[in-house]
Amino acid sequence: MKKRWQHCHAATMAGGKYSVIEDAVILTDGARIEWIGPRAAAPESGDCERVDLDGAWVTPGLIDCHTHLVFGGDRSGEFEERLQGVSYAEIAARGGGIASTVRATREASEDALFDTAKARALGLMREGVTALEVKSGYGLDLANERKMLAVARRLGEALPLTVRATCLAAHALPPEYANRADDYIAYVCDEMLPALVADGLVDAVDAFCEHIAFSTQQVERVFRCARDLGVPVKLHAEQLSSLHGSTLAARYRALSADHLEYMTEDDAIAMAQAGTVAVLLPGAFYMLRETQLPPIDALRRHHVPIALASDLNPGTSPALSLRMMLNMGCTLFRMTPEEALAGVTIHAAKALGLQSTHGSLEAGKAADFVAWRIGRPAELSYWLGGALPNRVVRGGVEIDVARIA
Amino acid sequence: MKKRWQHCHAATMAGGKYSVIEDAVILTDGARIEWIGPRAAAPESGDCERVDLDGAWVTPGLIDCHTHLVFGGDRSGEFEERLQGVSYAEIAARGGGIASTVRATREASEDALFDTAKARALGLMREGVTALEVKSGYGLDLANERKMLAVARRLGEALPLTVRATCLAAHALPPEYANRADDYIAYVCDEMLPALVADGLVDAVDAFCEHIAFSTQQVERVFRCARDLGVPVKLHAEQLSSLHGSTLAARYRALSADHLEYMTEDDAIAMAQAGTVAVLLPGAFYMLRETQLPPIDALRRHHVPIALASDLNPGTSPALSLRMMLNMGCTLFRMTPEEALAGVTIHAAKALGLQSTHGSLEAGKAADFVAWRIGRPAELSYWLGGALPNRVVRGGVEIDVARIA
Ligand SMILES: [Zn+2]
Ligand SMILES: [Zn+2]
Repeated sequence: MKKRWQHCHAATMAGGKYSVIEDAVILTDGARIEWIGPRAAAPESGDCERVDLDGAWVTPGLIDCHTHLVFGGDRSGEFEERLQGVSYAEIAARGGGIASTVRATREASEDALFDTAKARALGLMREGVTALEVKSGYGLDLANERKMLAVARRLGEALPLTVRATCLAAHALPPEYANRADDYIAYVCDEMLPALVADGLVDAVDAFCEHIAFSTQQVERVFRCARDLGVPVKLHAEQLSSLHGSTLAARYRALSADHLEYMTEDDAIAMAQAGTVAVLLPGAFYMLRETQLPPIDALRRHHVPIALASDLNPGTSPALSLRMMLNMGCTLFRMTPEEALAGVTIHAAKALGLQSTHGSLEAGKAADFVAWRIGRPAELSYWLGGALPNRVVRGGVEIDVARIA
Repeated sequence: MKKRWQHCHAATMAGGKYSVIEDAVILTDGARIEWIGPRAAAPESGDCERVDLDGAWVTPGLIDCHTHLVFGGDRSGEFEERLQGVSYAEIAARGGGIASTVRATREASEDALFDTAKARALGLMREGVTALEVKSGYGLDLANERKMLAVARRLGEALPLTVRATCLAAHALPPEYANRADDYIAYVCDEMLPALVADGLVDAVDAFCEHIAFSTQQVERVFRCARDLGVPVKLHAEQLSSLHGSTLAARYRALSADHLEYMTEDDAIAMAQAGTVAVLLPGAFYMLRETQLPPIDALRRHHVPIALASDLNPGTSPALSLRMMLNMGCTLFRMTPEEALAGVTIHAAKALGLQSTHGSLEAGKAADFVAWRIGRPAELSYWLGGALPNRVVRGGVEIDVARIA
């Protein structure tokens, strides 16, 4: 089915820039873009369906390349207690924090996890998200990590949404392995990853490299295992301190290193050489009231592609909006609106290994795009929250999120 | 028309607390709440219409008590330039900043202003806002301030929304009065306010008290004029420095003093004695990357009611979401979720002089409420952005914002 989408301007994001086409025409053939360019140069398109976009600005479908959106329970009770003055130590002592999310996720059925995750995904889709990543990491044993990854796969089947599943078994130490981190890592490498990869549930392997989580040695063991299994890696690195996890990630040609507030210029150089994307997560920075900014200038200087993501998770970033991250990337991290938009399109695609098929409006790529009723692309970063009117097209078909919900 | 809303929990916000009623019933008679209480105590309600709320949490309709949502143009271009490194001085020198909004607002027709303002109001309504305030202040002459206030009145007529119109003629000095601030204030007091009040367009009078705007002497002249005209006052005070505008506002029994980052404890005492509401605006605090926090503890100690608002404006807070302000009130200002919710309901109503008819779920008050699909009221503050599923009832009638748009 061929369609001709017209009466619009396009910010194609080719090459990581707006790469604007004024008065653009997009020809789609089924789920792919067949041609995009200025109307004056458009080929004849015969008796295809014509769609008038009414002067909208068209961008690639947004991509949220770092989420933990499958989880049991939420932590709004803890959030309230903290603001009422209960100390973090007191909450941790009674089993709060990530331990409570692990417990709730283990207790939840796959169907229950699917239903809550689906509602969150639909919220993101309503804002123009057409692809996202889902990490496991609250199961922390084979059966429960499998359950989380199966939910990620089901989301991709049930919704008009591209879903990439990342195994983050090395997220935290489960209670049954207390004080035995090396043993847990051995379990992850010897049993969990081989089984989950064999099940076809793993598009990438991630880990959390930090004093409060796993050491670079432990992470390297996970990375070696992933390499042996033929799966690309990612890493939560330099969020709270500088362990040079991002340099380690670059050595393993990671798709991305994420957070990065405490990274050094040498880390940036290593990432640039490896083609590893820097995924910045301003939602967690904001919620934790951090003050150490990621080194944007070093990343720019060394041409490290920068992505932005919601980090949607119940503890440090209960962020139901990717567009809010555009504003935070600009306001808190001083990115330009163009960099921010590249961060949720072309660079986010690269962070998921999807850059050859997604993330920009170019012939041959997926016909995933959003038509926004705005006057210039910078508005996507400028407005603080709220719903900007939009029409979402995925795989060449306009989707009606309200109807799906 | 009587209705019985049931199968819900209510956070009534009576007395500024959650004041929870579990398994609540709300009986409405036309546009008013006739009875609210636990189901076990509910009176027989005969053959009225029954509405099953499916286990939702019901709160009062949200009230955004400080907005500048009528304006021409937007400032996304300036936002982008600033992040690209253009200095504020350079932008101001070529007529940017508030001057550009004044120019665009003066140039816009009333219909054009109405259309863009309506779209913003609908966005807020989609999140559960059933009442809001609109300030003038970008016209800065009689005809254009009248145009803005007329748009505010039209919004209240065209939408199922309670709109309060505030005349903020003393917002900034218009170019034609450069270096003649006292003359401008004389024009405001002698001509603009009497005419606009006579037209029935003014529910309150506001001013901006700051070194970069008007002095306390000039503000007092405006306040005296408002008192003579029988209209209550409000004030933008202590946002950037401590001029004790909030104490001045209290002396004139202002409905509210707003911003308040630099207020002192003595200001808080004066406000408490006058019953003046402290309206905090975390969106502007966030966008300007301020670090001086409003003195929440002093406000609590002296029992000053605290409201939260979007401050929606094109320069310092292009905030299209009141719910985002709940999260920012908690995260940035360390308010509790209960205080934040009181800040957009009962205390926001008081900041608009509507506390006897709006802002809490109590018999006799307006049947304006929102049914949220959440597990506890704290979720309204906990989630960062995004749309929480909800059903909005205004004046006893469920409204479908998507259909209105
Ligand atoms: Zn994460
Ligand atoms: Zn204001």
